[in-house]
Amino acid sequence: MTPPLTDFSRLCIHTITTRPWSLKECIDNYRDSEVPAITVWRQALEPQGAVESGRMLRESGLRVTSLCRGGFFPADTDAKRQAALDDNRRAIEEAVEIGAPLIVLVCGAEPSLSLSESRRQITEGIAAIADEAKTAGVRLGIEPLHPMYADTRSAVNTLGQANDIALELDHSHVGVTLDVYHLWWDPSLEAEIRRCGDAGKLFSFHVCDWRFPVRDILNDRGLMGDGCIDVRRLRGWAEDAGFRGDIEVEVFSTEYWGMDQQEWVERIKDAYLNHT
Amino acid sequence: MTPPLTDFSRLCIHTITTRPWSLKECIDNYRDSEVPAITVWRQALEPQGAVESGRMLRESGLRVTSLCRGGFFPADTDAKRQAALDDNRRAIEEAVEIGAPLIVLVCGAEPSLSLSESRRQITEGIAAIADEAKTAGVRLGIEPLHPMYADTRSAVNTLGQANDIALELDHSHVGVTLDVYHLWWDPSLEAEIRRCGDAGKLFSFHVCDWRFPVRDILNDRGLMGDGCIDVRRLRGWAEDAGFRGDIEVEVFSTEYWGMDQQEWVERIKDAYLNHT
Repeated sequence: MTPPLTDFSRLCIHTITTRPWSLKECIDNYRDSEVPAITVWRQALEPQGAVESGRMLRESGLRVTSLCRGGFFPADTDAKRQAALDDNRRAIEEAVEIGAPLIVLVCGAEPSLSLSESRRQITEGIAAIADEAKTAGVRLGIEPLHPMYADTRSAVNTLGQANDIALELDHSHVGVTLDVYHLWWDPSLEAEIRRCGDAGKLFSFHVCDWRFPVRDILNDRGLMGDGCIDVRRLRGWAEDAGFRGDIEVEVFSTEYWGMDQQEWVERIKDAYLNHT
Repeated sequence: MTPPLTDFSRLCIHTITTRPWSLKECIDNYRDSEVPAITVWRQALEPQGAVESGRMLRESGLRVTSLCRGGFFPADTDAKRQAALDDNRRAIEEAVEIGAPLIVLVCGAEPSLSLSESRRQITEGIAAIADEAKTAGVRLGIEPLHPMYADTRSAVNTLGQANDIALELDHSHVGVTLDVYHLWWDPSLEAEIRRCGDAGKLFSFHVCDWRFPVRDILNDRGLMGDGCIDVRRLRGWAEDAGFRGDIEVEVFSTEYWGMDQQEWVERIKDAYLNHT
């Protein structure tokens, strides 16, 4: 049995989790609530830009866990594939500006191509930017997405596939982001977490829960304890595989976005201690 | 390249695909549209009972491909597990009454149990009824369901898992039902179809398409050609693995249920020739 977490030292919240808040409101409220770390979504950078966002984040004393998100490599034309690489290069610059040591990659899928061709283009795209990421001091975390997103969001749908790509590329700055929401159902999950950790490729860890019935395929995630994922057990597997990084709460939820967001952060902290 | 289908000799429609119709309307309209085979959902039996349904089906000359559905084995009490076995025994009786040579098993999942415990109970449940199915001359097809249904509908979510269970039980009347909707995303699909076919376990084959964006997790399936599944390629894999049975059109769709159902059957026939 994995013991509970007893303090908030590893708690990170994604700005998207408190989507009604601006980056400044996220920073102020997380700090006031003793949340030590933040993962920044790129839309939260837009209003004030990455340079000013970086200044705000450095002043806050918050730890920046990662930037969400790069990726979306597959496309049906060369021009679109090039545009995707350019966008990933901008993400690397933004990560440097805000002091994020990692970019999460949602790899993309082009429904007019076969999944195997999308997967080939993903591997090629990551290979194309890996050295630039290394030079910038930014790691890339391949995040496998739930198979229900294989149409347009990601052709990488299991931890096994993400591990295969990371091991094939064999690059110091390319690894894996593990999100319990996407992977909890996979019978090979425990073994693949071990494989990932043993290879030194388990770069980051996202938590939430699978609530049921699912009311919306995108924005109906649960908070830990709301659903059927044994989050603590999965955290135990990650830690048995050597993971010691932040535990990142990433919840897209129309329901929770409708709450008072300060109360929502308190609920997140309760769930972090009681169900994570 | 798999050649297109050129006639309707293997076309089967599930009664749920034309849900607004009663069993009698399904029978009359399928026959009038030269659809030779039918898979009967249990709710279509209810109004007139299995005996009368069987009489109607025999008179119609339609081929009964299968009865949908048994399963739902896992439960959190012995009493509920027993009730599930009893229900599967009733399904075997109904299959005999209507002349269905196969029952599709949607295996179930109990969210308060671990997935591995649900999976254990599924294997145990199938083992408990397999000899009775054999005595009745009815085969059981384990249908792996998409991972988005792992909360309550099925803890069997890949063809690999279904094959594992079928091979472990090693029973003449236990095999697998392959549905493209649930499995299209799986990088190991081609290999697992071959493994299933080589073992003589590929009992039945369901088609539809994955439309996107998904508007509803249950009732927004597409017709072949509507979405991103290369149905013909998957049919080719099944046939390369020896499958020669009916091709069963199973579409749950609020949109298509809202159409004139005779026009809908004609669209199904077009999609069968052009995209299957």
